[in-house]
Amino acid sequence: MRVLIIGAAGMVGRKLVERLARERTALGDDIDRLTLVDVIAAPVPVPLGDTTEAVALDLSQAGAAERLIASRPDIIIHLAAVVSGEAENDFEKGYRVNLDATRALFEAIRREGRTEPYRPRVLFASSIAVFGAPFPDKIGDEFFSTPLTSYGTQKAITELLLSDYTRRGFFDGLGIRLPTICIRPGKPNKAASGFFSNILREPLAGEEAVLPVGEDVRHWFASPRSAVGFFVHAAKLDLEKVGPRRNLTMPGLSATVGEEIAALGRIAGEKAIRLIRREPDAAIARIVAGWATDFDAARATTLGFSAETSFDQIIRAHVEDELGGRLPV
Amino acid sequence: MRVLIIGAAGMVGRKLVERLARERTALGDDIDRLTLVDVIAAPVPVPLGDTTEAVALDLSQAGAAERLIASRPDIIIHLAAVVSGEAENDFEKGYRVNLDATRALFEAIRREGRTEPYRPRVLFASSIAVFGAPFPDKIGDEFFSTPLTSYGTQKAITELLLSDYTRRGFFDGLGIRLPTICIRPGKPNKAASGFFSNILREPLAGEEAVLPVGEDVRHWFASPRSAVGFFVHAAKLDLEKVGPRRNLTMPGLSATVGEEIAALGRIAGEKAIRLIRREPDAAIARIVAGWATDFDAARATTLGFSAETSFDQIIRAHVEDELGGRLPV
Repeated sequence: MRVLIIGAAGMVGRKLVERLARERTALGDDIDRLTLVDVIAAPVPVPLGDTTEAVALDLSQAGAAERLIASRPDIIIHLAAVVSGEAENDFEKGYRVNLDATRALFEAIRREGRTEPYRPRVLFASSIAVFGAPFPDKIGDEFFSTPLTSYGTQKAITELLLSDYTRRGFFDGLGIRLPTICIRPGKPNKAASGFFSNILREPLAGEEAVLPVGEDVRHWFASPRSAVGFFVHAAKLDLEKVGPRRNLTMPGLSATVGEEIAALGRIAGEKAIRLIRREPDAAIARIVAGWATDFDAARATTLGFSAETSFDQIIRAHVEDELGGRLPV
Repeated sequence: MRVLIIGAAGMVGRKLVERLARERTALGDDIDRLTLVDVIAAPVPVPLGDTTEAVALDLSQAGAAERLIASRPDIIIHLAAVVSGEAENDFEKGYRVNLDATRALFEAIRREGRTEPYRPRVLFASSIAVFGAPFPDKIGDEFFSTPLTSYGTQKAITELLLSDYTRRGFFDGLGIRLPTICIRPGKPNKAASGFFSNILREPLAGEEAVLPVGEDVRHWFASPRSAVGFFVHAAKLDLEKVGPRRNLTMPGLSATVGEEIAALGRIAGEKAIRLIRREPDAAIARIVAGWATDFDAARATTLGFSAETSFDQIIRAHVEDELGGRLPV
């Protein structure tokens, strides 16, 4: 089986590749050829060295999509995107990368199939940013997409293209709407959503973290491990069961900042909680107030997708996967 | 005020131009300059002759959009599209005309505004084809768009672009989701939906018509007069009131074929009904079974849009507008 991962150097991409390094058949059959694509060459774990090539390529460049599709991969996992803030600040770049490059990929697949039948599985990383406030208390599977960012618009448009290309038989697609990933590994960044991870990751490493909003702020989460699990499950799922509506809100955990902190206390003690410094930031509070807080991901759950059901589980996944099971003393 | 109508030679376009010929201020202020664009030159009614130019232009050609926007129209009404059947049969043409040409128009407006502030009103003819079965009994304003045709996909994508360009301040847009227009003037055509009009229009002219489905088939209708009225109302509406969700399902009439026929009998007598020949067609019945039957167009209604509430009204509008008020003897 040939697998193409676009956006392989990103956070979810790297974790998916690490999973494949541990379990070569995680996506179904054994992998004969794995192509990792990103604007910088993605790291190749040693166990995958014999079958893997890392290609530094910008999918938005002319001819890039055709070059990747010429080898006719069986599974294409498309994770690459300009993030929300950048797509908002640079309108043209956001549309070029998040919409035009993805459409070029879809078109390359369609055209490849004109010479000889070709119908790969395409798994696309979408986002709950396809939804825009005001929301119902729980967003159901039939709630409409009225994004309030250019990033969300680009994701929603790609979802529509993915469904149409699937319906026409050009490929077999699934759009996977990721929750906010928590705990994000790495250093604190400037994303407005960063604090959801910072207030757990930093204290777990014995460092201070800043909390800019109140404890009653509620949001929708899944761990990096669950995010990888969604793609692993989707790679093997019988997509006939999904029907023509090919974009699924993934399961997640609806929780408040207060619930995050309580779980931190249970796992790492009061000492960890004392490392959270409260610095209210009205600008961040305003942005976050427009985000969805809860979903009923009934379709995805019925199809066998699963995520954490408590913040204790999310924290434990981080301690196991990032800290070698160790807590700070 | 400068007005640009794209798709001006189509059915709704021609009727809108006729309305402007009768009422030069129908869209608000008096029109100083009216540009009618279509792939063939649109007819220019005599009363509009002094201010109107008809341009034969294919918006999907390079540079066409820039050429139209250079004169900085205040109101742009975009009605042009490849119809559903053609967009399904010719995948590339459908995307080129219905998506790429419309996006080129939006982009031309955005770029025009970079030199000197420019923020026209853009009214876009969308369609209930953005919805795909299965449906609730009544489709509400928050039901999701999962089109089952490439045409519906292209309309849904344009709706998303229209909202984002509006949110970013590039123009002030409104997407107008038209019901099935009935009674369509002209001759019977091969559109699967043609019979809804044929079974009224032909008997009203003393001609035979074929009914390929059962009398219990229900669908969603408005007259050509109402369709024009939607754009006239939208041209003057305070769009601030609409908020960021800029695509509206227009009001219409949910009615069955049997109700159409009963109204025909009330207005034109049993003789007219006898001109309807029943020729069941399983293929057409199957297509029509996937179409929406009823909507709750609450938002548009609250914003002052209105349509017929009975088929008697729809038939009378046709008799007045197309038959000079005369019924066949």
